[in-house]
Amino acid sequence: MAAKDRLIVDMDGVLADIYEQYITMYSEESGKRVSKQDVLGQSELEAFPNSKEYLRRPGFFRNAPVIDGAIKVLQDLNEAYEVFIVSSAMEFPNGLQEKYYWMEEHFPFISWRQLVLCGSKQVISGDIMIDDHFKNLDFFEGKTLLFTQPHNHGADENGHTRVLGWGEVAKMLL
Amino acid sequence: MAAKDRLIVDMDGVLADIYEQYITMYSEESGKRVSKQDVLGQSELEAFPNSKEYLRRPGFFRNAPVIDGAIKVLQDLNEAYEVFIVSSAMEFPNGLQEKYYWMEEHFPFISWRQLVLCGSKQVISGDIMIDDHFKNLDFFEGKTLLFTQPHNHGADENGHTRVLGWGEVAKMLL
Repeated sequence: MAAKDRLIVDMDGVLADIYEQYITMYSEESGKRVSKQDVLGQSELEAFPNSKEYLRRPGFFRNAPVIDGAIKVLQDLNEAYEVFIVSSAMEFPNGLQEKYYWMEEHFPFISWRQLVLCGSKQVISGDIMIDDHFKNLDFFEGKTLLFTQPHNHGADENGHTRVLGWGEVAKMLL
Repeated sequence: MAAKDRLIVDMDGVLADIYEQYITMYSEESGKRVSKQDVLGQSELEAFPNSKEYLRRPGFFRNAPVIDGAIKVLQDLNEAYEVFIVSSAMEFPNGLQEKYYWMEEHFPFISWRQLVLCGSKQVISGDIMIDDHFKNLDFFEGKTLLFTQPHNHGADENGHTRVLGWGEVAKMLL
């Protein structure tokens, strides 16, 4: 049997709905409730000027909701591919353990052996990468799927293949 | 100018002297003081039957001494190479933040962007790897340096180049 292709999956904005966390914290702070529609095409920092501070709050990562469809599709992908979950986590080190325990709670079929928390993804090798940030996809040597999030809405895909959600990922990879 | 070669450096047993921590905890527990000489050629688990429990104790990683010569040589290597510090950390998640802050204290010239905490190093790509464990070196596609530690003493190098300490690393790579 041929070796499985290695699939690199991002956490924030792909498995974890961190926009919901931004929106909740912004609402508590400002009294204004915005929707994802309201911030389409804006960077995270443009949309939520205090987002870096939110990211440092205890519970930010631990309490993030799961993005629709992620659990079922990742479970199937985990059978078909050699899956690694790779998250940029070093800028906010207090979130390291939160990310570990969040994965353990929501994706118990993913082993700790499959988890990578890093500062830069340039050191990661694989066949396919799913990520919402160009800074990660642009340096990857394999096939690249741009997971739609408000901050990349309307952006030129720059050679990556845009996917609108986990249903589309499933159609493409399963 | 040509791109710098990418150098992957392990933490435990290469930068951090975890044997000193094993020896201290074993001594507190048993009243017996052993030396590194006493456990040459034994696996960590053979030498210290409770070592996995030691690894879970708060402070195990945070308080580990730095291996002789590591700071000066890594500082020079950091100029000459694209350095990433890659540590197997996911089996003991309570040590994730300890490892981050230990690096920040002892190696402030290494940025958080250069740090990777992972379950398996098979996903890491680079040109040179320094590590004390065959399970990491055997899967690496570049040049591999086996950093001598008691557990690999006397073992056949299996194609890797053995280095006895940071002085030898400097002679080889600088």
